[in-house]
This record gives sequence, C-alpha cells and structure tokens, in this order.
Amino acid sequence: MIKIGILGYGNLGRGVECAIADNSDMELAAVFTRRPPETVTILTANVPVVSAGDLEKWQGRIDVLVICGGSATDMPEQTPACARLFNVVDSFDTHKKIPQHFENVDKASKETGHVALISAGWDPGMFSISRLYSSCILPDGKNYTFWGKGVSQGHSDAIRRIKGVKDARQYTIPVPEALEKVRSGEQPELSTREMHTRECFVVAEEGADLARIENEIKTMPNYFADYDTTVHFISMEELKRDHAGIPHGGFVIRTGATGKDKENVHVIEYRLQLDSNPEFTASAIMAFCRAIDRLSKEGVTGCKTVFDIAPAYLSPLSGDELRRTML
Amino acid sequence: MIKIGILGYGNLGRGVECAIADNSDMELAAVFTRRPPETVTILTANVPVVSAGDLEKWQGRIDVLVICGGSATDMPEQTPACARLFNVVDSFDTHKKIPQHFENVDKASKETGHVALISAGWDPGMFSISRLYSSCILPDGKNYTFWGKGVSQGHSDAIRRIKGVKDARQYTIPVPEALEKVRSGEQPELSTREMHTRECFVVAEEGADLARIENEIKTMPNYFADYDTTVHFISMEELKRDHAGIPHGGFVIRTGATGKDKENVHVIEYRLQLDSNPEFTASAIMAFCRAIDRLSKEGVTGCKTVFDIAPAYLSPLSGDELRRTML
Repeated sequence: MIKIGILGYGNLGRGVECAIADNSDMELAAVFTRRPPETVTILTANVPVVSAGDLEKWQGRIDVLVICGGSATDMPEQTPACARLFNVVDSFDTHKKIPQHFENVDKASKETGHVALISAGWDPGMFSISRLYSSCILPDGKNYTFWGKGVSQGHSDAIRRIKGVKDARQYTIPVPEALEKVRSGEQPELSTREMHTRECFVVAEEGADLARIENEIKTMPNYFADYDTTVHFISMEELKRDHAGIPHGGFVIRTGATGKDKENVHVIEYRLQLDSNPEFTASAIMAFCRAIDRLSKEGVTGCKTVFDIAPAYLSPLSGDELRRTML
Repeated sequence: MIKIGILGYGNLGRGVECAIADNSDMELAAVFTRRPPETVTILTANVPVVSAGDLEKWQGRIDVLVICGGSATDMPEQTPACARLFNVVDSFDTHKKIPQHFENVDKASKETGHVALISAGWDPGMFSISRLYSSCILPDGKNYTFWGKGVSQGHSDAIRRIKGVKDARQYTIPVPEALEKVRSGEQPELSTREMHTRECFVVAEEGADLARIENEIKTMPNYFADYDTTVHFISMEELKRDHAGIPHGGFVIRTGATGKDKENVHVIEYRLQLDSNPEFTASAIMAFCRAIDRLSKEGVTGCKTVFDIAPAYLSPLSGDELRRTML
C-alpha cells in the first residue's frame, strides 16, 4: 500500500481523500492542517488529523505527501519545505512561475534524496501532456487551448472584491464558432475576445448600484475588459440552488499538415468535461503519486513534471498486463 | 541529426519519408526495399534505395530503422531480425499478437544491445496512451473506443476478394447516438452493431450479379455480419474521383465518477480526424524514433512500447524549454 499524506484540507484536499478510496493500492496516512486539528473533521475513519507543525515527526511513515494549499502563496513555500521531508506532489498552476518553482523544489528534493512532482492536474497537467504529444507528432501545426464551460475561481473572487457584491460565480465559455473554425484545420489567428466569453452571476447587497457594479466588472483590466462579458444579478437563493457546483473542462486542439505538398490536414483534440474541478485534479494527482512512489523506490531523486513520467508508471498494472489489455 | 532508415516503401514508408522532412533534427539515410532497387523512385534527392538483402552492411550508419511492412506477415519476421542489427520502431497493429511480438523483439534487441519500440501509431499508439492515462485518472470508469469515419483497408480487401468485384472501398462510421450516449456519462453497454455502421462503395465487373455480391458482403462473418452495412455500387471513375483518400480517425472516451457518493461524473475524450491514416501513423512513429535514439544513447536496451516512453523524450526541446512553453 502506498501511504498518502494530505497537507491542507480544502476542496482539493477533500478531493484527494475521495480519490485515495478509488485506488486499491493506496491508503490515507494522515491529514495535516494549519487549523487547530480538533476543528477539522475528515471523511475517512481512523485516520489522524495532525497539526502542520508536526509534519517532521511523520518522516518515514508517509510515501507521498500531496500539497493541497494554494498556488499563490502556499505552494511556493510549502512544496520546497516539504520536499526536504517527504516525496511530494503538488498542482502548482501559476504557469509563469513554474521554472522558478521547479528549481526550488528540485534543489530541496535532491539535497535530501526525495522525489517531487509539480504541476499535476489538468492545466497544467493533462492539457500540457496533450499539447506536448500533439506538438511532437505534428511539428508543422498550431495548438489551441479553450477553457470551459466552467467556473473560474480567480474571476469569481475578483467580482466578490467589488463594493456592493455579496457573492458571485463566473463561468468561462468557449466561443462555439471559434472551436469549429479551429477544428476545420484552417489555423485561424484568434484574439482573446474571439475565443472565450465570460458570464457572471452576481448577488448584490440590498440597495447597491447595479449599473456601477456591472460596469466595474466589464471594464476590469486583465480579468474582463478583453472579453465579451454578460452580467446577471440573481438572489442568494438562486446562486446556492443553481451555481453550487465547481464544473470545468475545456479543449486542447492541434491541427497540422503532412504530405509532400502539405495536402493532408489532421486534427488532434483532447477534451475534458468535469463535474468537479478539484476532484478531477485530485484524481490526476493520485496517478502521479503512484509514479513518484515507484521512482523513489528506484532511487531517483529531484523534481519531475508530468512530462518526465512514462505513462506505464501511472498504472497499478504490470507492463505485461498493460500490453495485453490496453495497447 | 538522427539518421533514419526506412524498410519497405509503400504508403507508410512514403509517409515516413515526408515526416522526416518535418523534423529538423532528422535525416533520411536510406530506403530499403525487397523490390529491385532500381525500380523504386523516392521523393528525397541524393538518398540511396538499397536492396533489403544489404541491410547488414548499413550497421553503424543508421540510428533508427523504421519497419514499414505489414503486420500480418512482414513485421513478425522483420522487426526481430532487424532489431539484431539496428534500433528499430514498428507500427505492429495485430492487438492480440502484441505480447508474442514484444517477447521476440525484446529478446533480439537485448541480445544485441539495441532498443526497439513496437506498435507506434494511433491505434495501437496514441489511442492506447489515451486509454492508459484516462484509466489511471478515473479508476472507477469505463473506456470506449470508436473508429472512423475512415477507410478500413482490411475490410476493403475482404470485399475485393468477392467474385465479380473489381474494386471497393469500405468506411467504418461511429453511430452518432452511441457517441452521445457515452459522452453523457451513463456508461451504456453497447453491442458491436450499436457502435459502428459500415458503408461500402463497390465497383462490380460488367454483368456481375449485384444482389449476390451485396448479400455476400452483408453476411460475411467477422467483417460485416455483426454490423448494419450499406452497399453502393458505383463506377470505377466515381471510386477514383470520390474515394481516393485514406482518411481515418476516431474517439477514445472514458467516463468515470468521483466524490464521496460518486456524485460527480467526468468525461475524458481524445479525438483524431485524419486526412491520411498512413501519414499520421508515420508522423507518430517519428516522435518515437527520437525517443528511441535518446534511450539508445543512454545505454538502454530491449523492447519498449509507447507506455514506456516519458512524453519529454518525444520532443526536440529541452526539459527547461518544455516547462516554460508547454506546461
């Protein structure tokens, strides 16, 4: 059994806990939290909730620790620090800061003889893998990534910070015509506005100036100004009833040409449609935990990404079983 | 530069030749043929066409030899034999015989210090990779593979063997309702007939009994009897004008559930839409040639499959470049 530890018990941590139960070769060893442990109730029976301050005492009792904090401020600290104590996997998703994060985690894990894997999940993660395979197979081609339909937490948070807003949910939606144009193989140049629209469901405080809120959303730089944005004001009851889930997904499409005169066009499309973004992310993390545990037992050290893991390492099946049943 | 050799100059061999031109780190060293070399004209200037009997003389001058014969009788002989002389990649696609083929190639390549990769392409190949990743991420789920719309060479050949048939082209077509049912996440049990239909375009000899031909096609065991099959009789001119291409493609879909009460359903879909089946297969083979060349330089020996290759090995970019641009 692969003994998994969870650091941080939010949506992602709970997703990891559920995903462990789906993998018969894994078990949950402990949940670590920065909150007072006695205030945290987990789903799994007979598993301790431990103060994050006691992590060090668990060395040798955990095969892989999953870092379930946030990418903005938690992981840049936690992943390198924990990589000094355990093999670790995180889902660091600030794309621009991945090289720096990789370097920090690589140093920590190499110095202490551990293996780490950063940026597991779906983007970065499975979408990255799809981009890489497709780019290698069709060198003369173009990649497109569409996100949604799904809830963007960052954009929902940005709306919540506007004065007069009680709560909000933002959906990112791919533009169907753009998707079709890409699938046709004609390799269009698409602006930000042409690829996605944004739809916002906003609960305003009583008496708030709705026109001002709508305008502040639609003109917000980086988040909304470059998109066609729709704003709906709804009641708290409607928000809770119709927008409680955290669905997401998207499309990675590469089109490219082959042949003597580039006369043949090919379309490679990878699509995810997820009822729960954190639970799917957690499920992907679990497969990479298995790989990291194996690499560690082979004596490998240092930081890896999803690009460095042969697919067979993700599976509980042997090479022979995989060749017989899946090849 | 990675020096590639091609054994067998049919549709696949020509596809490999074109694909080499798309990869700036590769060059074509020689084309080997069982035909008299002087009767074979290739596209690339200043590259020799050599008798397959002279393969041995090219040891040390080729980094990876691509086996472009057929899976039925050529590859079971050629791949192990060539793996004694070179690093090799093939696209062996008789799924049931893969374990035996693997064993033969593994023995030959290990004994002589080479690396081999069998069953590159799209199915087996990219479809297999998709099945493996998806199965590891969603252990509680179900895989579906749909093929088409595309030309099945084996089925077209089977029609051509019927008395009174001059030529034929057979298309395999996924049933749209079945695709939609699978995408809904309800994990239906689907019969052969429910998943695909077969459409045949047949050129009959003058005076042939069309009703008999149609009946022989529709009742042919294994090939057509289990499917809803449509037969169209057309002229040779129509066949050449409308059915000259070799398109193919398909869908690998896995749906699965996560969550405490399995309340969340996820859909992972990988889709290919290919203007040219052999050229896409060849393009996938090229990426795995790069990986095999690298593994060989690292001192690895023996037989591999697409499951054993970390995605980063397929790319000409460094780990650092990949993390910066694709993760």
